[in-house]
Amino acid sequence: MLGPSVSRQRDFSPPADSSAPARKSDPVNTTVDPRIAGELATIVGSANVLTSEVDLLAYGYDGTWFESRPLCVVMPGSTAEVQAIHSLATRERLALTPRAMGSGLSGGSVPLAGSIVLSVMRMNKILEIDAVDAVAVVEPGVVTADLQRAVEARGLFYPPDPSSLKQSAIGGNVAENAGGARCLKYGVTSDYVAALDVVLPGGQLVRTGGRMVKNVTGYDLRSLFTGAEGTLGTIVEVTLRLLVRPRYTKTATAAFDHLEDAASAVVAILGAGLLPTSIELMDNLTMRCVEESRPAGLPIDSDALLLFAVDGNYAEIVDAELHRIAEIASEHGARSTRVAADAEESARLWEARRAISPSLARKTPHKLGEDISVPRSQLVPMVREIRAIAERNGLLIPVFGHAGDGNLHPNILCDRRDPEQMARVRVAAREIFEAAVALGGTLSGEHGIGLLKKQFMELDLGVEALALMRRIKDAIDPLGIMNPGKVFPDPGGSDAFELPSK
Amino acid sequence: MLGPSVSRQRDFSPPADSSAPARKSDPVNTTVDPRIAGELATIVGSANVLTSEVDLLAYGYDGTWFESRPLCVVMPGSTAEVQAIHSLATRERLALTPRAMGSGLSGGSVPLAGSIVLSVMRMNKILEIDAVDAVAVVEPGVVTADLQRAVEARGLFYPPDPSSLKQSAIGGNVAENAGGARCLKYGVTSDYVAALDVVLPGGQLVRTGGRMVKNVTGYDLRSLFTGAEGTLGTIVEVTLRLLVRPRYTKTATAAFDHLEDAASAVVAILGAGLLPTSIELMDNLTMRCVEESRPAGLPIDSDALLLFAVDGNYAEIVDAELHRIAEIASEHGARSTRVAADAEESARLWEARRAISPSLARKTPHKLGEDISVPRSQLVPMVREIRAIAERNGLLIPVFGHAGDGNLHPNILCDRRDPEQMARVRVAAREIFEAAVALGGTLSGEHGIGLLKKQFMELDLGVEALALMRRIKDAIDPLGIMNPGKVFPDPGGSDAFELPSK
Repeated sequence: MLGPSVSRQRDFSPPADSSAPARKSDPVNTTVDPRIAGELATIVGSANVLTSEVDLLAYGYDGTWFESRPLCVVMPGSTAEVQAIHSLATRERLALTPRAMGSGLSGGSVPLAGSIVLSVMRMNKILEIDAVDAVAVVEPGVVTADLQRAVEARGLFYPPDPSSLKQSAIGGNVAENAGGARCLKYGVTSDYVAALDVVLPGGQLVRTGGRMVKNVTGYDLRSLFTGAEGTLGTIVEVTLRLLVRPRYTKTATAAFDHLEDAASAVVAILGAGLLPTSIELMDNLTMRCVEESRPAGLPIDSDALLLFAVDGNYAEIVDAELHRIAEIASEHGARSTRVAADAEESARLWEARRAISPSLARKTPHKLGEDISVPRSQLVPMVREIRAIAERNGLLIPVFGHAGDGNLHPNILCDRRDPEQMARVRVAAREIFEAAVALGGTLSGEHGIGLLKKQFMELDLGVEALALMRRIKDAIDPLGIMNPGKVFPDPGGSDAFELPSK
Repeated sequence: MLGPSVSRQRDFSPPADSSAPARKSDPVNTTVDPRIAGELATIVGSANVLTSEVDLLAYGYDGTWFESRPLCVVMPGSTAEVQAIHSLATRERLALTPRAMGSGLSGGSVPLAGSIVLSVMRMNKILEIDAVDAVAVVEPGVVTADLQRAVEARGLFYPPDPSSLKQSAIGGNVAENAGGARCLKYGVTSDYVAALDVVLPGGQLVRTGGRMVKNVTGYDLRSLFTGAEGTLGTIVEVTLRLLVRPRYTKTATAAFDHLEDAASAVVAILGAGLLPTSIELMDNLTMRCVEESRPAGLPIDSDALLLFAVDGNYAEIVDAELHRIAEIASEHGARSTRVAADAEESARLWEARRAISPSLARKTPHKLGEDISVPRSQLVPMVREIRAIAERNGLLIPVFGHAGDGNLHPNILCDRRDPEQMARVRVAAREIFEAAVALGGTLSGEHGIGLLKKQFMELDLGVEALALMRRIKDAIDPLGIMNPGKVFPDPGGSDAFELPSK
């Protein structure tokens, strides 16, 4: 068993190279020093330091294929305990990987070798729901669906809905600045983060933002920590803005013979000043996968389906807007449109939407889910590009996503035991990113960069912006102990798409 | 005439103390080195380097009382020229103070001694208005009202409306993250900044953000530069999000016998799920000042007036919401409510709102305008505090502002030739800040910190958050050449309210 050794320092300490993961040739500690484990146990209690093989496996993955074995898992129960863990990590130059539910889709919470997982899941209390200030104060381990139930019981509304299963936790959502289907009308998570308590790498506690609606005092640290994917500190408390729950929500669908017509209809609907809660897209392959695994009556004889939700406080307006949407869809080539007759039909359609990800997972042994985001005007070209890329590389790439936001989830179906196919997957993934960036879009609309897309950061941001982000990282985390190996490209790493391999 | 001397380096270069202005005892250059002026003229043309006494006066003030004489004024016409100016400033350790229209209310663009004003007002082109992506691409010198006219002619809408006179420029609005009356429904400037091109202190050009709706690729640099008040770089291009213009806007008023009832009504209206475009408050003293200088028929026999705007695409809904608002106001003690009969009556009311600032300026020789922001639940206590502070200090402090946002503008009326009164003004201003912070609020909702409030930053943010902002400043501007003396408190400075003196 190794102590807090030179190799660990080499892995994490030089600021200029601070978030580089251990190279394959470096010796890396694979078990935790008993002295460190003892100090952690003193902080959080020995029941909250996990070191068994099965626990290390359980905390070594997320929603991607990436897997890695942490040194150990520590589960603080309070802000003070998080601060003490950070102080210890700073003193001993230990890497920390903050983790909430582990439902992320970019490998952001997968602990690179030599890293300690800091799980916030014991910090799972809803501390306050205040209807007057319209905020909820929560610990980072609160599960999104639980918060939504609690605020809706008070007639309030927390719109971000980042996971199809809602089983993500608030801390992870904030770390990724996650989105969800309702972003079109209601925005991303960062729009709802009123205040954020963050433990800095060295253990200092910083409060950013507040309950007030307007706040321009100093730099916007709240936005900086939101979406930083745990590379700048650990989020220990979140104050979220709430809305008053809209009284009515209704659903409509439009089926198209051509996916590109569906994309054009989206542009026309938004251009007419209509603002649905959601405009979700499923292409034919996506619909067929859903129908195979969980029949929902989707129109699999059509090329693409748009699913619209409209909400508001006036039933007649909600109806009028849905009908206007259906009208515009028809004008743009929809073969059929339908307003869901009742809540039951509406629920069935949204269940089908939520079933996409698990259904695709059943189609082939693996899938690589992407998350590109393009300007609204580039939706049609982007859809065209994805289809060409699939064709050219001989791959199945179902396309679905938040079409109204320009945020698409092309999923590359594959079998990672097939090296020849995986070479094509790698090419296709790269081509999708390049197309998105060339169209004025970006690598990630809501899942974050994590491990999966870090090698493409320079392609997207350019040398100067990436260097600036690195300077901010080094200023806040000079020892590079926070979630190393994430977001920033490996300095000596290949420019290839990072794919997990067994 | 002095060269790029040691004293200038002492003023601006040490990173640990990088934004400290020259102390009174330091020798400060007061005229520009002819060699520097020559190099600037080579970059921008000699007509665009201003050095005459009258020009230096004209570029030495903003919307506050602060005045200072820059070394010279340089007016670049392009991004490349801004980059060249930054490179020169870096090489010569010259301080730069970016400036747009100079309409700011916190001294943010007042050049401290030894600083060069970098005026962006020649960069005043609307480069593009794109209805599909719903964005406008503008240079920083575009005047807000001009942009609004241009987009409204296309059926589009740019909600931020930061100046009552609309004569502020986009670059300044973004630098301050300014707000305005419509923030309640539509948010602050940062919600509309899709992308920002910024020239970093050393001259590198960085693009942050993009036209896409969702973007979580790397750290949120866009939000960091928005509201940084020119301390991190010069904004050279802004891509602004646009909305589709709502079809109907109507106005209503409610007069109250007690200011506190007005504040309670605001809380009740928002709690009922109504979301007006604006809820503006004027207290009795504010109304009387307006009526004295520009009669508008305001109910000066009442203690407070609320002015509501509601907009939307359905006339009947707009009407229904206004009537519901009036009803709730009555339930909360309004002595009278009125829905404006027509566009003319509505325009007259909003003209009265816009007349507040000039009217107060006529009441006494000077006024100190504040900009505190508190959580909605603290509106009543805050209003009570301001009245008590006015009483205790024997001062007139009319209160008006964006009550729906919790963003109030208490204005301390004064005569700065009266030192005894000014001592009380200083105490009252400090007490207002302390009360706002104690109630969970902040120093500035939309005007920024600039010179005026920098000594209160630690009171508001605490030691650790302020230290973190300083680390970010030093990482991005290690030589401290960007807008020195702003935002951050003077290390050796007094903890007193910074008041300009003649």
